[in-house]
Amino acid sequence: MTGPVVGIVGGGQLARMLAEAATPLGIHVRVLAAPSDEGASEVVPDVVVADPDDADALRAFARSVDVVTFDHENVDHDLLRELEGDGVVLRPSVATLEHSDKAHQRRRFSAAGIPVPDFLVLPGGSDVDADAAAAFAARHRDSGATSGDVVVKASRGGYDGRGVWILGEEQLRQFVDSWSGAPLVIEPLLRLRSELAVLVARRPSGEVVTWPVLETIQVDGMCNEVLLPAPIGEALRARAHAIGVQVAEEVEACGVVAVELFVVGAEADGAEQILVNEIAPRVHNSGHLTIEANATSQFEQHLRAILDWPLGPTDGASAAAMANVVGNGSDEPRSRQAEALAAVPGAHLHLYGKSPRAERKVGHVTVLAADVAAARRGAALVADVLAGGGTPIEEAATSTEGRS
Amino acid sequence: MTGPVVGIVGGGQLARMLAEAATPLGIHVRVLAAPSDEGASEVVPDVVVADPDDADALRAFARSVDVVTFDHENVDHDLLRELEGDGVVLRPSVATLEHSDKAHQRRRFSAAGIPVPDFLVLPGGSDVDADAAAAFAARHRDSGATSGDVVVKASRGGYDGRGVWILGEEQLRQFVDSWSGAPLVIEPLLRLRSELAVLVARRPSGEVVTWPVLETIQVDGMCNEVLLPAPIGEALRARAHAIGVQVAEEVEACGVVAVELFVVGAEADGAEQILVNEIAPRVHNSGHLTIEANATSQFEQHLRAILDWPLGPTDGASAAAMANVVGNGSDEPRSRQAEALAAVPGAHLHLYGKSPRAERKVGHVTVLAADVAAARRGAALVADVLAGGGTPIEEAATSTEGRS
Repeated sequence: MTGPVVGIVGGGQLARMLAEAATPLGIHVRVLAAPSDEGASEVVPDVVVADPDDADALRAFARSVDVVTFDHENVDHDLLRELEGDGVVLRPSVATLEHSDKAHQRRRFSAAGIPVPDFLVLPGGSDVDADAAAAFAARHRDSGATSGDVVVKASRGGYDGRGVWILGEEQLRQFVDSWSGAPLVIEPLLRLRSELAVLVARRPSGEVVTWPVLETIQVDGMCNEVLLPAPIGEALRARAHAIGVQVAEEVEACGVVAVELFVVGAEADGAEQILVNEIAPRVHNSGHLTIEANATSQFEQHLRAILDWPLGPTDGASAAAMANVVGNGSDEPRSRQAEALAAVPGAHLHLYGKSPRAERKVGHVTVLAADVAAARRGAALVADVLAGGGTPIEEAATSTEGRS
Repeated sequence: MTGPVVGIVGGGQLARMLAEAATPLGIHVRVLAAPSDEGASEVVPDVVVADPDDADALRAFARSVDVVTFDHENVDHDLLRELEGDGVVLRPSVATLEHSDKAHQRRRFSAAGIPVPDFLVLPGGSDVDADAAAAFAARHRDSGATSGDVVVKASRGGYDGRGVWILGEEQLRQFVDSWSGAPLVIEPLLRLRSELAVLVARRPSGEVVTWPVLETIQVDGMCNEVLLPAPIGEALRARAHAIGVQVAEEVEACGVVAVELFVVGAEADGAEQILVNEIAPRVHNSGHLTIEANATSQFEQHLRAILDWPLGPTDGASAAAMANVVGNGSDEPRSRQAEALAAVPGAHLHLYGKSPRAERKVGHVTVLAADVAAARRGAALVADVLAGGGTPIEEAATSTEGRS
């Protein structure tokens, strides 16, 4: 172990793909995996098995490595603060991780002038004010600019469409009255022209790079496909990059941050607006295609950034698409590789070593092609074969709002 | 372990890079590593530590996996034949592996009409005929087409220039008289215009693919740099591909086979001839740049081929170069990554997890660029930084013969 030692909290596919990027760089990876985690353990020799809420285990793990980073954000922030106070190097820092709280994120971005949807934060527990929620919904219904429904999000703990509800005014009052969990963020259900993602990497010494802007396609609130390049004009592209960099600076990102964006507004070119949907202070599903499509992948770049090494170029292929492989509860993608490769010989398979429980991301496929449509067809076809043929890919180019 | 299990005999960098390619494909890798092997063990969880000459260990290992492949050829062929007889799937087969014997290879290729240098095989042990060797050398000296010296190669056990000697006529007689090892192959020392490598993959069901032809640059008999594309005309390129395919069919390759070629003959376009220098029935140093420069790397392709999965496309970047990182006995490349990446931010580092003993390959660097000269400069610079600045890269575009 002569190279630096990076500790990753969490043993899912993000840890697995970080480890894949670490090997050629001569970086040693140590993973803190929960007993139930699948993904990294089969391919990383140095795994500590413990629940990330086990304070003693996390303390010992953090002190055994040069820098700590994260596969997920579900870690007790008070404990992380204690570790930071003791001199453990957390990248990202707790201050950055706190932006995974949707209420905190909305308030901070709004105060910093970063464009976000109109929102209302309701305290959690038993103090939820149903009247305020109803008034917010009514105001947006009357504005005519939205569908009339609202989106209600738990500020913490959601992912892949979980913790997000789309409700009419009547349902909203009932929901809020019966809620006793985390604070809620309420927003109008916007009519989206499309959803974008911009990935940004920032290192402690300040260098910041972005990747070409991506289009993301959500199905049932879960990111299902990602397309490169996003079909937008130069003005919108520049705006997306500028917002991405502003967000990375605002949250003092260290490593990769994924910024998910809504495109709203009139159809006419130049009339679109970009709003920040949410961010993930880490590598992200929307960036998986960077492994093959860009000069430096999000995984390699994250490692370079958290070690404060020079960042790499991010220029990309002319067109690429990623499709997730989603489990259906029975078919095992790890027995279908030959069939998948026969469907599209140049497809890049990424299987995560996870059992194919229904609705669970168990892999992804990236295809490079001469144009986005061809890449998208190829990636969707291969993902469908791997999933067992049970995952019809929707052709919708726009989507309703959701969490990816 | 739901996917197929591939067993790799040997735990060096080729096993390490095969494992890197196996992970995203959902292929489980098990490595049989000798106690002294460095490279794969740090990054592969499933390692059996035993000497490959330990018959019981190799038998148990082979029977625990779906298919056996090789990081190196230094395995007892009689034992492998026994395993094949018992139904173990060896890919490549023993019959293919036997071509790593240089005498066997020369005779087979010559009989099959594959162009090779003129050669003489002398039996090993105490039966070596110094007069025959001297007569061979004299005949080539008198032809005027060569330098007058001869190349003497041990038929087995050499690598990276070891087991190869360049000798004048007087030295030859002395050498042969004192030799008591493996059979020897004697060839004229040819005036080379350049050296090429063509990689070929072949699967059991017969599909064969080649990659774009590469130029290899040897220093002291060790492959030091590889350039894509090779600076040759279309006729020579087609000839190299045809010979590569013929070799793969002749040796009944399964997986990747690297075919190293000499270009000899007059300077005028169209007057060059290609001769097969030697082959390696496995992934090879000359193909490392395929990881970034080609649609399918040699490592992924080898896995696809030995599992009889469809082979992938091999179209390549417009220009790329690879430079080996060679140890100098003291400087540790695993502490120089930041410096190396600062030198050429888009360089792709590959460190093998090996201690930097002098003259030992401990990593490689690949750089893609707009032209070969720029890629070569970049790769050489970064390899030099990683090696500690003690590895001057020669600018020679041609080379004397040697083993890579």
